[in-house]
Amino acid sequence: MADKYKHDFFNITFPHEYVAVVEINRPEKLNAFKEVQWLTLRTIFQTLSHDPSVRAILLTAAGPRAFCSGLDVEAAAAGTLSSRETDGARQANYMRRHIFDFQSCITAIEQCEKPVIVALHGICFGLAIDISLACDIRLASSDARFSVKEVDIGLAADIGTLTRLPHANVPMSWVKDVCLTAREFHSEEALKVGFVSGVYEGKEGVVEAGLEKAKLLATKSPVAVVGTKELLNYSKEHGVADGLNYTAVWNAAYTQTADMKDAILAGLKKKKVTFAKL
Amino acid sequence: MADKYKHDFFNITFPHEYVAVVEINRPEKLNAFKEVQWLTLRTIFQTLSHDPSVRAILLTAAGPRAFCSGLDVEAAAAGTLSSRETDGARQANYMRRHIFDFQSCITAIEQCEKPVIVALHGICFGLAIDISLACDIRLASSDARFSVKEVDIGLAADIGTLTRLPHANVPMSWVKDVCLTAREFHSEEALKVGFVSGVYEGKEGVVEAGLEKAKLLATKSPVAVVGTKELLNYSKEHGVADGLNYTAVWNAAYTQTADMKDAILAGLKKKKVTFAKL
Amino acid sequence: MADKYKHDFFNITFPHEYVAVVEINRPEKLNAFKEVQWLTLRTIFQTLSHDPSVRAILLTAAGPRAFCSGLDVEAAAAGTLSSRETDGARQANYMRRHIFDFQSCITAIEQCEKPVIVALHGICFGLAIDISLACDIRLASSDARFSVKEVDIGLAADIGTLTRLPHANVPMSWVKDVCLTAREFHSEEALKVGFVSGVYEGKEGVVEAGLEKAKLLATKSPVAVVGTKELLNYSKEHGVADGLNYTAVWNAAYTQTADMKDAILAGLKKKKVTFAKL
Amino acid sequence: MADKYKHDFFNITFPHEYVAVVEINRPEKLNAFKEVQWLTLRTIFQTLSHDPSVRAILLTAAGPRAFCSGLDVEAAAAGTLSSRETDGARQANYMRRHIFDFQSCITAIEQCEKPVIVALHGICFGLAIDISLACDIRLASSDARFSVKEVDIGLAADIGTLTRLPHANVPMSWVKDVCLTAREFHSEEALKVGFVSGVYEGKEGVVEAGLEKAKLLATKSPVAVVGTKELLNYSKEHGVADGLNYTAVWNAAYTQTADMKDAILAGLKKKKVTFAKL
Amino acid sequence: MADKYKHDFFNITFPHEYVAVVEINRPEKLNAFKEVQWLTLRTIFQTLSHDPSVRAILLTAAGPRAFCSGLDVEAAAAGTLSSRETDGARQANYMRRHIFDFQSCITAIEQCEKPVIVALHGICFGLAIDISLACDIRLASSDARFSVKEVDIGLAADIGTLTRLPHANVPMSWVKDVCLTAREFHSEEALKVGFVSGVYEGKEGVVEAGLEKAKLLATKSPVAVVGTKELLNYSKEHGVADGLNYTAVWNAAYTQTADMKDAILAGLKKKKVTFAKL
Amino acid sequence: MADKYKHDFFNITFPHEYVAVVEINRPEKLNAFKEVQWLTLRTIFQTLSHDPSVRAILLTAAGPRAFCSGLDVEAAAAGTLSSRETDGARQANYMRRHIFDFQSCITAIEQCEKPVIVALHGICFGLAIDISLACDIRLASSDARFSVKEVDIGLAADIGTLTRLPHANVPMSWVKDVCLTAREFHSEEALKVGFVSGVYEGKEGVVEAGLEKAKLLATKSPVAVVGTKELLNYSKEHGVADGLNYTAVWNAAYTQTADMKDAILAGLKKKKVTFAKL
Repeated sequence: MADKYKHDFFNITFPHEYVAVVEINRPEKLNAFKEVQWLTLRTIFQTLSHDPSVRAILLTAAGPRAFCSGLDVEAAAAGTLSSRETDGARQANYMRRHIFDFQSCITAIEQCEKPVIVALHGICFGLAIDISLACDIRLASSDARFSVKEVDIGLAADIGTLTRLPHANVPMSWVKDVCLTAREFHSEEALKVGFVSGVYEGKEGVVEAGLEKAKLLATKSPVAVVGTKELLNYSKEHGVADGLNYTAVWNAAYTQTADMKDAILAGLKKKKVTFAKL
Repeated sequence: MADKYKHDFFNITFPHEYVAVVEINRPEKLNAFKEVQWLTLRTIFQTLSHDPSVRAILLTAAGPRAFCSGLDVEAAAAGTLSSRETDGARQANYMRRHIFDFQSCITAIEQCEKPVIVALHGICFGLAIDISLACDIRLASSDARFSVKEVDIGLAADIGTLTRLPHANVPMSWVKDVCLTAREFHSEEALKVGFVSGVYEGKEGVVEAGLEKAKLLATKSPVAVVGTKELLNYSKEHGVADGLNYTAVWNAAYTQTADMKDAILAGLKKKKVTFAKL
Repeated sequence: MADKYKHDFFNITFPHEYVAVVEINRPEKLNAFKEVQWLTLRTIFQTLSHDPSVRAILLTAAGPRAFCSGLDVEAAAAGTLSSRETDGARQANYMRRHIFDFQSCITAIEQCEKPVIVALHGICFGLAIDISLACDIRLASSDARFSVKEVDIGLAADIGTLTRLPHANVPMSWVKDVCLTAREFHSEEALKVGFVSGVYEGKEGVVEAGLEKAKLLATKSPVAVVGTKELLNYSKEHGVADGLNYTAVWNAAYTQTADMKDAILAGLKKKKVTFAKL
Repeated sequence: MADKYKHDFFNITFPHEYVAVVEINRPEKLNAFKEVQWLTLRTIFQTLSHDPSVRAILLTAAGPRAFCSGLDVEAAAAGTLSSRETDGARQANYMRRHIFDFQSCITAIEQCEKPVIVALHGICFGLAIDISLACDIRLASSDARFSVKEVDIGLAADIGTLTRLPHANVPMSWVKDVCLTAREFHSEEALKVGFVSGVYEGKEGVVEAGLEKAKLLATKSPVAVVGTKELLNYSKEHGVADGLNYTAVWNAAYTQTADMKDAILAGLKKKKVTFAKL
Repeated sequence: MADKYKHDFFNITFPHEYVAVVEINRPEKLNAFKEVQWLTLRTIFQTLSHDPSVRAILLTAAGPRAFCSGLDVEAAAAGTLSSRETDGARQANYMRRHIFDFQSCITAIEQCEKPVIVALHGICFGLAIDISLACDIRLASSDARFSVKEVDIGLAADIGTLTRLPHANVPMSWVKDVCLTAREFHSEEALKVGFVSGVYEGKEGVVEAGLEKAKLLATKSPVAVVGTKELLNYSKEHGVADGLNYTAVWNAAYTQTADMKDAILAGLKKKKVTFAKL
Repeated sequence: MADKYKHDFFNITFPHEYVAVVEINRPEKLNAFKEVQWLTLRTIFQTLSHDPSVRAILLTAAGPRAFCSGLDVEAAAAGTLSSRETDGARQANYMRRHIFDFQSCITAIEQCEKPVIVALHGICFGLAIDISLACDIRLASSDARFSVKEVDIGLAADIGTLTRLPHANVPMSWVKDVCLTAREFHSEEALKVGFVSGVYEGKEGVVEAGLEKAKLLATKSPVAVVGTKELLNYSKEHGVADGLNYTAVWNAAYTQTADMKDAILAGLKKKKVTFAKL
């Protein structure tokens, strides 16, 4: 593995051509996050975004018990949350900068050009939900337990859940229920409402399924895959006329590629095709 | 009960600390609405919104047969709909003002700072749908029957259903089906598509479930609960970057609260915590 | 049938009062589309939109095997895709114009004032998805097979799927899965996520169900039906305040109709009512 | 004058048919505002909005020295600003409600269906700018002195100036200059950048010019005038396609009026026409 | 001149390479418009948009007295406005379709890929303003007289003025003044507020200036010119982040052109360069 | 000067308390920009944004002849523009990333929390316009010469001008004129249309005026100044209702400051006040 992918608290591997696996690695703390971790997460996904050797990414977490138990509250209490200005406006500005920076680290996953599949298992609380909503495809193990936990620590969730969950096209009545009550919900319910799009047997099951999907995406034309992610993201945020117009301008450039002819031929001949790097 | 909560056609009670129950009370007419009722509904929810003794609200309706059978068409025919200007433009302006005012009464539920749970039972036709869509969490009894009835009286529904149903994150093909055909659908179907997020046995079942949920919300930090409702509503209406930014500004102020420390300690000690009024 | 409805590759019939059936008719090519077909599709729906004899439209396709297998790639290769400018910017402008024009043909279905039900059967690949998403109500046969196929030909889908699927209120995790993988999915899955709102036994089943629904819509006040489609489309694209305001202005005009009184009386007397043409 | 227009701190007169003049009347305090005044302002403009005897409104202020010197800081210090919660989040919620309510009072001018001309003279500081920006047409006396004063009291202006000035189509570089520096500017500069559209000799001059303009508007079809204000306001807030669509729906109703024929005939015959009330 | 440019009521000439002049030609009626004219206008600009021999367009009008005196009211009275449905809703739908179609004809100027300069002279009333606002650059003769005339015929202007004037970045106080009063304003005022960006001596002066500007634009790279018009139009309708993103995607394609190198060399060598057609 | 402000191509000084002056320093090349410069520009403004010792920033350029002559075309030709992929789609992706990164460097000025005044002198071509539009207040010397130069190098300007100029509230007809023709315009014209809000005698004049303004801003409450910049930027990008709401939430936090009382007292006592750092 290249040095640029060596980081504390994360293992990054490339088990198949064009497939990267990012593993959150702090199992002894149930993969809870402290500041260095979210800063590193941003660095990793910004690097993967432009790495021509990567076409699909799987995000997982180490250890059997938890994908992520949320913010490392102890570290936060000793860090950010400890430094309080006495003037309310100045404290507000301090917090605003802090939240922006934290949010932008998670948004790096959404802005990564390459599609990101997340394999959720065990405990997925608080920040785990924020992170998973910045991913493109959410898969869960049969034993996964979810909670939008923030209300229970006196806080409206501010790292993305309250913004992205209403845009995930899951029923709003359910969204408000889980966000206001902070109650746990499990894989079956998550699948039924559409929060995840697949449930698999145990952590092994979901990691394997995620890997298979990543491998599948990695066989496709990267021009088509990158365009599809971007056009879906743009369209979700804009009206239909805007979405169609943007799509036309995008493909005005991105159909000027040998991948189209190669992909069609490969389809006809049922043969594997090699696409150039992107 | 305070005098400010005494109104014809509504019973307002406070069965638990910080929990208000608003019961529509015109069972002899299947809780059909005439003008005084929607004007009163606005007053009630505007008052509840800022009442520091209220942290969660349950909306129910009296009588075994209907949550609400819709507009009281007879009263409407004798009232608003009878007064017709002969000049088309002037009649249009008259109707526009009337519809705006009617809409704004229902919107008062959505704008209420505190979360509103609605317990739907029996007949839920026309205006019942408009009202329920302004609530945060929709629960139904097993015997509930729904219909977006307006097409059958020669009218496109104009008090909120056609606006809010497409934003409830229920499938659009189904939305158009029920809005264009005015066909009845029942609890099971409502749950499957996500229009409601829970179905319970009979009216008693849903009212009890709604009350339990309201009680649960009432135990949480009101700072966290009010923020969560507002941030979800804002985010649903804006793009992701806007939603994140608004969230950061919001929490720049709303994290300056003792509730956070108190809630965390309560969580650790598994003890009940008392939050100051909001 | 009027001459204005005679077109190659389409059969247009009027089996019931106020009901039009548009059948895609190129079964020997699995109803694949070449340019003349999408241009004709636009003409047909623009004509139906203002035809006072039409109140509901069913879109079907000839032959047992496919609703539509997508773009006729062979024809495209010989046509549009063959004409390549050597200057990248000029080729981009050529493609942009071409995609716009193609998109606008499909958008004609969405802009048609009258509701459009689509009965999907057999193979529904690529362009079939684009077309179906411009329709109001999507129904499927039990044997329908769907695929957002474009990634497999090196292309981000550009005729509407990537824009309209995120607005169909089906879960985004699922949307990204099927758009990025190009995997097939079948009727049961399509129903579960809400892509279609009904599944019926075989092609006969879905066409009959679609026809029954079209007949039902055709019995309603055309003023109410046209308004309902328009207000749902507008509201999906705008925020709640905007949607309510537009609805009020719309009904300021469209409640000035005899249909309301006639519809109410018909409802009370359980009798059929005849509405004037629109 | 009807009782409904009797209020402390305001004189409301009807000097010409269909013309209302609202005069701010607290000259001994340079027309500074305390809470009762902005609450009353809302009541006045909500009443005028639907009063069929009113077609145009002129807003002026009593006394020779000032249109309005801004917020009555002394009263504010004793009132709103004195009541401080010790919990930052609770104080934030208190202030948020207070600012909303204050803003909505000023917005009542913008939402008034009838056009509002403001005649500005002498000192126009702070709140005077907020108020004038909610009016449709701004005229000034030659001696008017303006200042976006809030920065000088440690505050970002929050009653509308920072929101509406960027939408008044005056150059942004100038907007930021006057808002950030709080420097005074005078009539000539205000006219040159377009903040006001007319400057007249002394208070008498601007009041007379405003009255003449109000009288002119009052001779026009109220259907056309009300529509023109609404369509300009809507269009300013939306894109071109949206604006055109809304305009078409609006006029679908508002062209169904005898005013059009009457106005055309009156124009041809150069005769005065009497339009029905609206 | 090609046959495709032969139309009643319009003269279309090509006085210089890549420059088209469209002259409205009904001087005996002061260039008032009836339906056939606006339908033809749409055809002309749709054709010019994609014509590789055209890089800049000048819009003028025949005769010394008027650019356009507005709608041909007589023809409208005998045509569209005569056909009145007795049912208000049906009349509304009829008018809505009519206004949409009329608007879309004027919008064809805005959507034309090539920049359009308009040379305004003499009477420019009503529809003249709608038309000029769909053009890119507005120039006027010293004798031009403007009026947003519609209020004086009992109508809120509905063919674009009320939508596009607030987006022309001219002061809103002035916009509301001229739209609500229907008063005349002349060239000097039009220039001062920015409605036009140049005033020239007499009709000859403005036509010559417009032609010189068109000739200048025709010497530039058509790739750069077409992109500049599109990016300005897009950005005006969207926020800054959206505008920057769209610009980047656009230029991802449109910088793949030989024009850049050719233009730079031509600039260095002060020589004329020949760009390929677009 | 702190080391963090030592950079090639820029001089950063702090001539007065809380005032930073950033001088572009490559006069031998007329301050043309190559990549290292725009990357450095981003670093500088990101640092200034959060530096508590800075409350206002003046941007100037070294040498008598030019503020900035634009992109260093020679360097670009040898760098970015030289590296061309042969596959059109891959080249498009390369350019898209490059333009995004370049744009984001300029946007750092807009996102800097503290207000930025730019003093423009001499040649201000191409990139100079992009940069100045990201600043808050634009001042010019009497000898300044401006040009949106990009069309003359075969390019639609893509680093911000075409996006931000339509949002600077200068007349659109003029905007399109200067962007499409690439013609030079001078200070007087820039002032008349509102592109700059002040013109001063020579470079010395504008730099001194800019410094005076920066010093003035630096005496104000930083809470008020930072809030004013942010609320103006937000409001310019959103509708009025959104702007008012955001303002209320913002000030819910930022009025919790001692600055308000201190500023009011200072105003009453005409004394200088010392505000805490932000």
